[in-house]
Amino acid sequence: MKLGILGGGQLGRMIALAGYPLGAASTVLEPAAGSSAAQVCGQIAGEFDDHRALYELAKVSDVVTFEFENVPVESARWLAERVPVYPPPRALEVSQERLAEKRFFQSLGIPTPPFAGIESEDDYRTAVIEIGLPAVLKTRRFGYDGKGQAVIRTPADADAAWQRLGGRPLILEGFVPFDRELSIIAVRGRNGQIVTYPLIENTHIDGILHRSIAPAPDLGEELTERAAEFASRVLTELEYVGVLTIEWFQDGPRLLANEMAPRVHNSGHWTIEGALTSQFENHARAVGGLPLGRTDAVGFSAMYNFIGTVPQAAAVLANPDAHLHLYGKSSRPGRKVGHVTLRAGSRSELEAKLPEWDSQFARTGEG
Amino acid sequence: MKLGILGGGQLGRMIALAGYPLGAASTVLEPAAGSSAAQVCGQIAGEFDDHRALYELAKVSDVVTFEFENVPVESARWLAERVPVYPPPRALEVSQERLAEKRFFQSLGIPTPPFAGIESEDDYRTAVIEIGLPAVLKTRRFGYDGKGQAVIRTPADADAAWQRLGGRPLILEGFVPFDRELSIIAVRGRNGQIVTYPLIENTHIDGILHRSIAPAPDLGEELTERAAEFASRVLTELEYVGVLTIEWFQDGPRLLANEMAPRVHNSGHWTIEGALTSQFENHARAVGGLPLGRTDAVGFSAMYNFIGTVPQAAAVLANPDAHLHLYGKSSRPGRKVGHVTLRAGSRSELEAKLPEWDSQFARTGEG
Repeated sequence: MKLGILGGGQLGRMIALAGYPLGAASTVLEPAAGSSAAQVCGQIAGEFDDHRALYELAKVSDVVTFEFENVPVESARWLAERVPVYPPPRALEVSQERLAEKRFFQSLGIPTPPFAGIESEDDYRTAVIEIGLPAVLKTRRFGYDGKGQAVIRTPADADAAWQRLGGRPLILEGFVPFDRELSIIAVRGRNGQIVTYPLIENTHIDGILHRSIAPAPDLGEELTERAAEFASRVLTELEYVGVLTIEWFQDGPRLLANEMAPRVHNSGHWTIEGALTSQFENHARAVGGLPLGRTDAVGFSAMYNFIGTVPQAAAVLANPDAHLHLYGKSSRPGRKVGHVTLRAGSRSELEAKLPEWDSQFARTGEG
Repeated sequence: MKLGILGGGQLGRMIALAGYPLGAASTVLEPAAGSSAAQVCGQIAGEFDDHRALYELAKVSDVVTFEFENVPVESARWLAERVPVYPPPRALEVSQERLAEKRFFQSLGIPTPPFAGIESEDDYRTAVIEIGLPAVLKTRRFGYDGKGQAVIRTPADADAAWQRLGGRPLILEGFVPFDRELSIIAVRGRNGQIVTYPLIENTHIDGILHRSIAPAPDLGEELTERAAEFASRVLTELEYVGVLTIEWFQDGPRLLANEMAPRVHNSGHWTIEGALTSQFENHARAVGGLPLGRTDAVGFSAMYNFIGTVPQAAAVLANPDAHLHLYGKSSRPGRKVGHVTLRAGSRSELEAKLPEWDSQFARTGEG
């Protein structure tokens, strides 16, 4: 199988690496030279809306996928007339627009925080009153890792947020109280087969994922089943193929959908060592039309991101539980340069080791 | 770290793939175009005794290793004057010559089958009488996968074997009765740290590995410890760095060394899914001067080789326990084109599933 990937970041790199053992050789379309993915597979250099580059990619690919959700939908549609594109372009379209995404969840009976679409300052003032404070004002498009968002706690915040973000299509979301953030990684095959990984507990710092624990602790079976059932609704409705991620707020027994990503996800990196089949392999299997692999957790995992500064491999691996993943990037503030997964044989072992791991892999100032 | 690898086969491919997450980018020196390894990393095209190509490799490498044991020792020594070469060239020298290898085991107090060096037909006739029949006549150099060997059961076989192999330096080895073949994968770091994987049970067909089971069943702790202790003697004596494999005949409580390979090994492929750290990652860690990873088995694994015919990925993965590894090769009789590892959560689950796996992955006629 020849696999085309839109985007040359670390997610593309890890899909390419997972593809080789299955007989899949990858080519990424990526404008930047020496990208993370292009270090481990072929590259076509070009912009994501450059039809000549897209044509080149289609020519060398049996199937095309993407590793970031801001791929131009038009490009995905144009490609899909020439070569199978998975996940389907409609999944991109829905997930690129926060209002459409929330309405999509709503249409499937999946609970979300309260929200309102904002087209004007009038809409905004009304929504602030109806939804109440605190709330979060967000651009509808191209937000990631906390960018394009403003938390509003006071009327003064509300004015400042409007100053900063107003004039674009926005969404105001009620700032629901929640116990923690969870995510689920789900996969649908070309034949409709669906598998889901255990729920993951995520901790963010400055809007960027810091730590994931999987399976998430203190979960009832009911919560796990509900998240899987919600994910299945989304996959089925979109006639989805590949890995899909949904992020949740957990508020006691309630799960509220925050957002979805039509791709492999940072919160699923633990699956490389911590599950029977990694999210990257299952994505490659799904888009390649192969049977999906088992998603059971193997032991109990914690994953930490390295942000900003590339760590010394020897220092990380001095911890005998550490599995290191560097992305072939140089240090730069705010950049995801690698991650480490640590695995324990039991929940109590994980809990006993977590304070030491938290301390060893605390995010540094440069993040 | 920039890693140079002599040889472009599947072992080099899997070392290169395991290196990326550690921040190691590999370049293979390999004469053939489109080799298994060169599909996933850089290549310098050249013969293994071409000093210009060797020089190119040294220039782009922080450290050089090899993936097959028939690398010219002179080339390894020449390289070692320019860049660190691990494992040490002496390990190549010892393992390339069966008589030297057996004497080396003997010098370390490691039991072997009875053997005699053969320089002439007189030597041969004497050795056949002293060692007795059955015995195996082998060329001393460049034998692998059962090539360059003749089993001698009768005086007539002895004449035929001499007709076929005589005139070269040979070794006659007593054909010891044995219960089964085992192997051990051991690793030594640059700082002298040694780790060993559990003993593996291997089944060969026509001299080519067919199936490995790890950890090997029905082992006393004593046997495991003895194999690890013998491997440590070899590693220490050679001031070895990297993965070393020793193959054994087990005869009741006795372990007899058959041969060693100064490299990652087919019988260690199960470690990708079946151990906390794969042999490939630990080899990259060792030669790169990084701390070694844990070698504990994760569950119970069976590995089967695909010989001759590249299997259909979908057919292999229809088995939900299957982890597929294709090498990017085309079908050709006798060629190792891939392997599959299946993992069970318990010994009894493995034993219950083994007949079905044996049947699904039986070697086909083309092997």
